[in-house]
Amino acid sequence: MPDDLNLSATLLDRFRAVRRRSREIAEPLSDEDCCAQSMPDASPIKWHLAHTTWFFETFILEPHEKDFKPFHPAFRVLFNSYYNGVGDKHPRPQRGLLTRPPLADVLAYRRHVDERMNMLLAAGGTDGRIAALLEVGLHHEQQHQELMLTDVKHMLSMNPLEPAYLQTPWMPGRVAPDMHWRRFEAGVVEIGCKGDDFCFDNELPRHRQFVEGFAMASRLVTNGEYLAFIDSSGYATPSLWLSEGWDWIRAGNLSQPIYWRRDGDAWQEFTLQGLQALDPHRPVTHLSFFEADAYARWAGARLPTEAEWEHAARGCTDFGRPALHPAACGSDHGGGKDSNDSNDSQDSLMQLFGSAWQWTLSSYAPYPGYRAADGAIGEYNGKFMSNQYVLRGSSCATPEGHARASYRNFFPATARWQFTGIRLARSS
Amino acid sequence: MPDDLNLSATLLDRFRAVRRRSREIAEPLSDEDCCAQSMPDASPIKWHLAHTTWFFETFILEPHEKDFKPFHPAFRVLFNSYYNGVGDKHPRPQRGLLTRPPLADVLAYRRHVDERMNMLLAAGGTDGRIAALLEVGLHHEQQHQELMLTDVKHMLSMNPLEPAYLQTPWMPGRVAPDMHWRRFEAGVVEIGCKGDDFCFDNELPRHRQFVEGFAMASRLVTNGEYLAFIDSSGYATPSLWLSEGWDWIRAGNLSQPIYWRRDGDAWQEFTLQGLQALDPHRPVTHLSFFEADAYARWAGARLPTEAEWEHAARGCTDFGRPALHPAACGSDHGGGKDSNDSNDSQDSLMQLFGSAWQWTLSSYAPYPGYRAADGAIGEYNGKFMSNQYVLRGSSCATPEGHARASYRNFFPATARWQFTGIRLARSS
Amino acid sequence: MPDDLNLSATLLDRFRAVRRRSREIAEPLSDEDCCAQSMPDASPIKWHLAHTTWFFETFILEPHEKDFKPFHPAFRVLFNSYYNGVGDKHPRPQRGLLTRPPLADVLAYRRHVDERMNMLLAAGGTDGRIAALLEVGLHHEQQHQELMLTDVKHMLSMNPLEPAYLQTPWMPGRVAPDMHWRRFEAGVVEIGCKGDDFCFDNELPRHRQFVEGFAMASRLVTNGEYLAFIDSSGYATPSLWLSEGWDWIRAGNLSQPIYWRRDGDAWQEFTLQGLQALDPHRPVTHLSFFEADAYARWAGARLPTEAEWEHAARGCTDFGRPALHPAACGSDHGGGKDSNDSNDSQDSLMQLFGSAWQWTLSSYAPYPGYRAADGAIGEYNGKFMSNQYVLRGSSCATPEGHARASYRNFFPATARWQFTGIRLARSS
Amino acid sequence: MPDDLNLSATLLDRFRAVRRRSREIAEPLSDEDCCAQSMPDASPIKWHLAHTTWFFETFILEPHEKDFKPFHPAFRVLFNSYYNGVGDKHPRPQRGLLTRPPLADVLAYRRHVDERMNMLLAAGGTDGRIAALLEVGLHHEQQHQELMLTDVKHMLSMNPLEPAYLQTPWMPGRVAPDMHWRRFEAGVVEIGCKGDDFCFDNELPRHRQFVEGFAMASRLVTNGEYLAFIDSSGYATPSLWLSEGWDWIRAGNLSQPIYWRRDGDAWQEFTLQGLQALDPHRPVTHLSFFEADAYARWAGARLPTEAEWEHAARGCTDFGRPALHPAACGSDHGGGKDSNDSNDSQDSLMQLFGSAWQWTLSSYAPYPGYRAADGAIGEYNGKFMSNQYVLRGSSCATPEGHARASYRNFFPATARWQFTGIRLARSS
Repeated sequence: MPDDLNLSATLLDRFRAVRRRSREIAEPLSDEDCCAQSMPDASPIKWHLAHTTWFFETFILEPHEKDFKPFHPAFRVLFNSYYNGVGDKHPRPQRGLLTRPPLADVLAYRRHVDERMNMLLAAGGTDGRIAALLEVGLHHEQQHQELMLTDVKHMLSMNPLEPAYLQTPWMPGRVAPDMHWRRFEAGVVEIGCKGDDFCFDNELPRHRQFVEGFAMASRLVTNGEYLAFIDSSGYATPSLWLSEGWDWIRAGNLSQPIYWRRDGDAWQEFTLQGLQALDPHRPVTHLSFFEADAYARWAGARLPTEAEWEHAARGCTDFGRPALHPAACGSDHGGGKDSNDSNDSQDSLMQLFGSAWQWTLSSYAPYPGYRAADGAIGEYNGKFMSNQYVLRGSSCATPEGHARASYRNFFPATARWQFTGIRLARSS
Repeated sequence: MPDDLNLSATLLDRFRAVRRRSREIAEPLSDEDCCAQSMPDASPIKWHLAHTTWFFETFILEPHEKDFKPFHPAFRVLFNSYYNGVGDKHPRPQRGLLTRPPLADVLAYRRHVDERMNMLLAAGGTDGRIAALLEVGLHHEQQHQELMLTDVKHMLSMNPLEPAYLQTPWMPGRVAPDMHWRRFEAGVVEIGCKGDDFCFDNELPRHRQFVEGFAMASRLVTNGEYLAFIDSSGYATPSLWLSEGWDWIRAGNLSQPIYWRRDGDAWQEFTLQGLQALDPHRPVTHLSFFEADAYARWAGARLPTEAEWEHAARGCTDFGRPALHPAACGSDHGGGKDSNDSNDSQDSLMQLFGSAWQWTLSSYAPYPGYRAADGAIGEYNGKFMSNQYVLRGSSCATPEGHARASYRNFFPATARWQFTGIRLARSS
Repeated sequence: MPDDLNLSATLLDRFRAVRRRSREIAEPLSDEDCCAQSMPDASPIKWHLAHTTWFFETFILEPHEKDFKPFHPAFRVLFNSYYNGVGDKHPRPQRGLLTRPPLADVLAYRRHVDERMNMLLAAGGTDGRIAALLEVGLHHEQQHQELMLTDVKHMLSMNPLEPAYLQTPWMPGRVAPDMHWRRFEAGVVEIGCKGDDFCFDNELPRHRQFVEGFAMASRLVTNGEYLAFIDSSGYATPSLWLSEGWDWIRAGNLSQPIYWRRDGDAWQEFTLQGLQALDPHRPVTHLSFFEADAYARWAGARLPTEAEWEHAARGCTDFGRPALHPAACGSDHGGGKDSNDSNDSQDSLMQLFGSAWQWTLSSYAPYPGYRAADGAIGEYNGKFMSNQYVLRGSSCATPEGHARASYRNFFPATARWQFTGIRLARSS
Repeated sequence: MPDDLNLSATLLDRFRAVRRRSREIAEPLSDEDCCAQSMPDASPIKWHLAHTTWFFETFILEPHEKDFKPFHPAFRVLFNSYYNGVGDKHPRPQRGLLTRPPLADVLAYRRHVDERMNMLLAAGGTDGRIAALLEVGLHHEQQHQELMLTDVKHMLSMNPLEPAYLQTPWMPGRVAPDMHWRRFEAGVVEIGCKGDDFCFDNELPRHRQFVEGFAMASRLVTNGEYLAFIDSSGYATPSLWLSEGWDWIRAGNLSQPIYWRRDGDAWQEFTLQGLQALDPHRPVTHLSFFEADAYARWAGARLPTEAEWEHAARGCTDFGRPALHPAACGSDHGGGKDSNDSNDSQDSLMQLFGSAWQWTLSSYAPYPGYRAADGAIGEYNGKFMSNQYVLRGSSCATPEGHARASYRNFFPATARWQFTGIRLARSS
């Protein structure tokens, strides 16, 4: 980052747009909807709205605002997610009990911080450190925007009334094209962020990896294909599963994706638009790593490594139409057009972005030479590098402008409430 | 109950008054407050409002209303508490996730059922069965009114902002009078409801018990007295505790009542009016059976049996001023004036009613000859007769007109979120 | 107890006999069998052998032996069961990890303490305090003798090889006679130990209770009768169960007694003689309180209270032939002949003793005026008086001379590994 | 493997030597010691002795022996560890309850299978398939030999008597030399087994990886160095820990290695020779991944990846003196002499083998092109490739001849009962 940056209008505009988008996500929801927490992994919408604001207040306003005073002294603890360096934290599983402050106060908190941020940024003379922190804060808020959608989906799915988040009509997906394999030669490739645009610390440093020859599937696995796995007793065949995954599905008595509902001979899926007939052409989503891995084994393939995925996605500049609408999830096969190879439609990879995060075989670990930032902000990524798997791409719930080929998302192997799907690979 | 009762205006008035009171309890609370659930033992206010309505709809309207149609078919499951005879139930620990139906819909449900009840009752010709069910329904709703206050208190206590349910000023309690002992001679006594007024099935049949000579304390144990127990290492002395109680306080690292907060050398207590200085003169409340039992042992006494308590309370006709206000909890020493013995103030028992439920040594068990009612309504009391202790009297949160000497309240030995205190007894 | 007792030869003989009996129980078992622990509620045989010895060493030798030195200083902690007054305890769930000291050392410990006890007792001049402690120690060891048999049965039942503790032949039980009801009039009765012979503190003081009129079943419920309960969907009918019991059988997926095995259309039962065909005429054993209570409700009856049971058993002086052999469990209908009424066989209660402990409706609580002994020995009974149910009578595994009409055994409502059965009662 | 191998005398000799070694490990132990199980992760010695025998019976004798009959039909289930393809398994946490079969029967089982194996192998004409399975069986048994030592150490450590497995005298370790860094240049390296000697399937296929420049520590971290980490509040500094590791040490209240005991100002360590003064010069062992990772961060370094480790160890042909004796653990700095570079002592890596397994940063995952074997034997390695970390090298408890540079050991990040230590690395 340049050291003496005058914050560009662009950055200010992006600040306002991102902040507005969070409020928009909350708009279809009642105060009650915004307060409830369906599991420790998820957070209430209100908490997301406050925590993303706390981030700007704590990491930008507090060190840089003259005569800084917090909006509310207790918020420092209430809306700290996991930064030990900042001090105490409110216990995560109890976030749903925070009926106070009410939603109205949290929205006032947002407005208050937004105004102070506008003043600070407009004052000019801000140095690059603020710009850098602002970038982190915006991407941080975008991450929470995706979580808001997945968390509220999970919460609504627990309600026997099966309420819809959105009232928009459900549109059938297009017919999925045949899947084919794109081959890649062995060789040394470069992985990680080039550093000319924003990226998180976990994408750095850019470094070399040797990738043996492999092939990648041209598109994601569909609901219909996954249904064939279920129908051929996939959930009852131990040889298809990692040992830990097998124990997990037995303990939880699991036999289908989390949001699927069997309805006699037919299947339905709980969506952000409520309960809908299962569309066989859309990409299967909301799978755990264990389910994705078992499917791949059943299909005679495997999941890609993150290096394979990033190498294959390199040069892909068309991220598809922005996923304006999570309800559209999976209705589109766009994304992933290979700019170097655009006349060879046979060979392009579809749905790299904008449909479903793609589980990889790679555990989340630091790149060689990785260094976390100093101070509390350095607790952002590195300390989660154990017992999680990397996912690549982006989903229909990922905000526009948030995805890139070097992006490393990560979740535990049992996580199912994200829009997570399967892209197959195989060694060639 | 008379078989052919014409519902008196009194009963109708009581129906309206009880129903109104539930809404009043919810009034100081936001939609968010009404939706949250702080532990599986507690329920959201909204759920209480709906469940008490479900009770009238299911047990009175459904069998007696012509062309009965439920307000909402799903409510039969959502708001069934534990009646297996009615069908499926929504899992109790997930009641806090019912952000839908919204509070407004539940209030509409209440109005709708109230109107249908009014019509049914006004139609006359109602037989005694309806009157009997209506009585049960009203007392059932009063029980939930007390739970609404204790549940919301627990939920607010989990919030670091320590919000007050009521904004009324905190009034210091009067100085507690000296405690003295009232003696009772051994003999056969009659226990249980006489049956001329309403009572629950668990108070029947009235039967004989032999009670050895005993003495009862004239008033409840105060906060100040309980503090002396803490200060003399009561929570660190295993010989004072039942074995199970000792394991329980060790496992939970407990060393004080649930709502007490140590503030340097001083103590505070979380109340329905927020955090307040601990008043040494008020009765200690929110104790588990284990804490009450350990205190009694430390004090060289014991808890009374329920037969002793009921015998001692017999003839007590002055229930004190109605506990209009839970905030007033413990500020009054009223109640329990012995009508047979009114000129002997030395000998009267105070605080029998309206201050705090009083743990007894008696496990909750059926009286000899006990019979549950037939059908689902029979699941009201009998099936909970295991591993719970009987509490007698009533608390500051008990609705007016709900208490009586034969009343048997019951909770597990570890329950702390009710207004539960200590009356000492000893064998003489 | 007389204050200046010279220990009679009888008491010395009983000391030797009881000590010998413990070793005999261990004789059919290997070192490995004696070391394993199948659940936290049970203890290894070796631990029982050591703990009963520790009791004499700690409570008799330590205070009364001149120049007392413990056999092994670490045994004070290792073999303390629950006496906080004695000091630290080894964690109960880890008793099965005590492969050291080896069984041989524990047997040497027993011999060593026995010799020192013999010397102390033979030295004469022992006062009544020692005699009283010795009595407690002997009854304590007899309690552990019964636990040795039930604990080893549970441990062997977990082994897929289904090993038999005893190799003796399995004898079919006699045909059970018809059950009839014996009626008892209402009235004040005396309950508790008269105090001329040994009893535990929990049987004191003898006191009065009023018992309403009731009837008791002439014999215990048989396997065949319990099978009818199972066959009529007893385990699938919630209205038969206490709420807590219903939750418990659902959580554990329970549908039959713990040692029953379904074998196609037939049933087998795991016994101390290995797996055997279920004998429909023997008393059903190894039931939890919840199962006993549900059966009684299904049978249109109820469990007796402990006062009813003790009143009904009063005057019964024939405890049946000593249950020399637990393998004979249930093969005999003896016991309980009423000495006052011996010419009315119609009216006698059978199987009061020597077949199966009989669950009562009564929670384990102190008698009015109960006082625990001072010091660590006072931790014997009183501190367990919560959330347990009283059982009366004795079982086929109870040592000869250990049972009496006022005896109060107690276990939690879910305990199934004791020889626990059902005697029905009803209010008349 | 050659297809038509005549089993060489060498292989037969190795079979006998490996089988004998297992019995030798059990020799210092009593029947009771061999039966107990201290945690679900560990197994009883007797179970190890039986399971390693079951492996030969099931995978070699059953398919290849004429008129095969199992030694005992129930052993197929009892001693199956995790092979779903073989059928049912006895629950792992209940292995300590298998007091039957007694140890003597398991030793007879060993002799019986050994004799049948001898006959089968001596019959000649055995094809390469048998030789391959025999190799797997021998290496499998060697893995269990190491587990026997670590499992029995854990079990004995739970005993307050702190019994020693071995009675041999405790020898002080030599003074640890200064640690220095050996640098390695970036480049493509080959990783995995070359395939001319035996290796497990998880070491295949040999493949290329690009390794950025790095440095490796010349020796393992010592107890003394780890003590400095403790003394500088390492266990109380959240920024040193992975988030999951921090939660884990807080939940378990952990502040030191599992076998360390603080003794006033001094430290002791529980060893196979009982409790001993902590030797500051020996390598620290029995660390979890989380502890190793936190130490490395504190020391300004990191753990190596498995590719870095294997690359650095390449060419190292001197595995040190065989670790005949686990008691000698850490007393020797041998191992890891670089044969290519033997005149440059400055540059050699010590303690690569024979001291302590070395945690790597690498999650356990399949190599590109990995294929599990067909059938039940294929359940050996691949199905455990989730949420475990790779360890490299070998420990003082690893049998002679079992270690190699491409060997991939793996355990969950919280495992502490293995001889696991730290070799530091850093990016250069």
